Amino acid sequence: MVGDRMRNIRLTVAYDGSRYAGFQLQPGRPTVQLKLQEAICAVTGADVKVTGSGRTDAGVHAFGQVVNFYTDSGIPADRWCNALNMHLPDDIVVWMAIDAPLSFHARKSAKRKTYGYTINGNRYPDALHRHLEVHHPAPLDVGAMKSGLLHFIGEHDFTSFSAARSDNRSNVRTIYAAELITEPVIGMGAASGSGKIRLMITGNGFLQHMVRIIVGTLLQIGEGKRSAEDMSGILAARSRSKAGPTAMSHGLMLWDVVY
Amino acid sequence: MVGDRMRNIRLTVAYDGSRYAGFQLQPGRPTVQLKLQEAICAVTGADVKVTGSGRTDAGVHAFGQVVNFYTDSGIPADRWCNALNMHLPDDIVVWMAIDAPLSFHARKSAKRKTYGYTINGNRYPDALHRHLEVHHPAPLDVGAMKSGLLHFIGEHDFTSFSAARSDNRSNVRTIYAAELITEPVIGMGAASGSGKIRLMITGNGFLQHMVRIIVGTLLQIGEGKRSAEDMSGILAARSRSKAGPTAMSHGLMLWDVVY
Repeated sequence: MVGDRMRNIRLTVAYDGSRYAGFQLQPGRPTVQLKLQEAICAVTGADVKVTGSGRTDAGVHAFGQVVNFYTDSGIPADRWCNALNMHLPDDIVVWMAIDAPLSFHARKSAKRKTYGYTINGNRYPDALHRHLEVHHPAPLDVGAMKSGLLHFIGEHDFTSFSAARSDNRSNVRTIYAAELITEPVIGMGAASGSGKIRLMITGNGFLQHMVRIIVGTLLQIGEGKRSAEDMSGILAARSRSKAGPTAMSHGLMLWDVVY
Repeated sequence: MVGDRMRNIRLTVAYDGSRYAGFQLQPGRPTVQLKLQEAICAVTGADVKVTGSGRTDAGVHAFGQVVNFYTDSGIPADRWCNALNMHLPDDIVVWMAIDAPLSFHARKSAKRKTYGYTINGNRYPDALHRHLEVHHPAPLDVGAMKSGLLHFIGEHDFTSFSAARSDNRSNVRTIYAAELITEPVIGMGAASGSGKIRLMITGNGFLQHMVRIIVGTLLQIGEGKRSAEDMSGILAARSRSKAGPTAMSHGLMLWDVVY
């Protein structure tokens, strides 16, 4: 299966992050990158390095994570998905594979990303979707949360919404769209309580923990512990300590990456 | 917490059936009934027998299974859910509890039940919902499946669609409604292929494996192996061997029970 030219294969990958220590390789721990690299090695016989559009933290899921890797394998593009899925555990599924230009880089070429974060605001947890959402039974003022969310739209320094240990050169990012979607689009499960709420947020990039800290802060607004108008002050402070807690990882999903 | 009168508590329970050998007690195996009885014992101190609206097979899920049990506990109705959920594993959730008349019987009092069965007809499996649906990537003629489904509406002898070992006195059941719902109401996941398809079927009762055999036969129609018109002949034959295979259990969900 060795062809006469180097190829750059771009994969779109869904995974249930429950069992993984995140996307990126970590010595001695199960990660999505490791499983992908092992599957590619099983198919091509070659050790490769997979580049992802970005890390996802331990427990975070993906519907549309994008990765690329170089290979001289001659396997046709439409065979890669089945070939790799045969060697992947059933909580990682490759669902698109194309030949990308050699210059394509899953992280550096990304133009925008969309994350989803699902909150189950019902009185009781949802036994069937418990791995994909965070249960938060306290009553939430969704209108106030929507008002708070508006402050994030546009270009801002998101230092207040970044993991304290973040070492990014610049914490300026642009949010193109952010909305809160409520039941019934999310599916069944409204046993009682205030329904399910999903944040969908699209930007040119996200700092570590950024979506989860935004969610943690929005939940404080929803509970009346902060007002929506506090958001501009929190952004201006450029201090992690001003924002709310980091919401749990298993509610978060990397939805889509656009190039 | 012992009151001065006997009460009949009616619970509505959701569960992820993946880890269980079905609803009904089986010596030495984990079942939903066992977990519910253990939780009730932990809360009330008394051994009770829980009666379900019906058995669900190993691997089958429930959103709205209904059970009842007798107790002299004085716990208010609105406290039962939290009290029991504290003692239940996170794949079983009690989400409604009411005081029912002493004559209420979860199985005998049931007027109709609704089951759902979800088929993922996309080219690749859905890593995030793999426990709730059966992956069937072959192209399906959904129109033909809908035509086939019409034959089940009304009162019929469903012997052909019953587990061969079934010992029911009568195999006559009435189907009030049956429909196939396609994406996007079911949620995300349409990576490619023919989308997700969910059968929703409501009847006055269902024989063992009945929904799963109906699904197995509908899939044969969808694949062009049988015609929709064959359904009336299969029903008339009253012979299990005339119908299609029993579809896998993990696509099935007991949705709702009406009294």
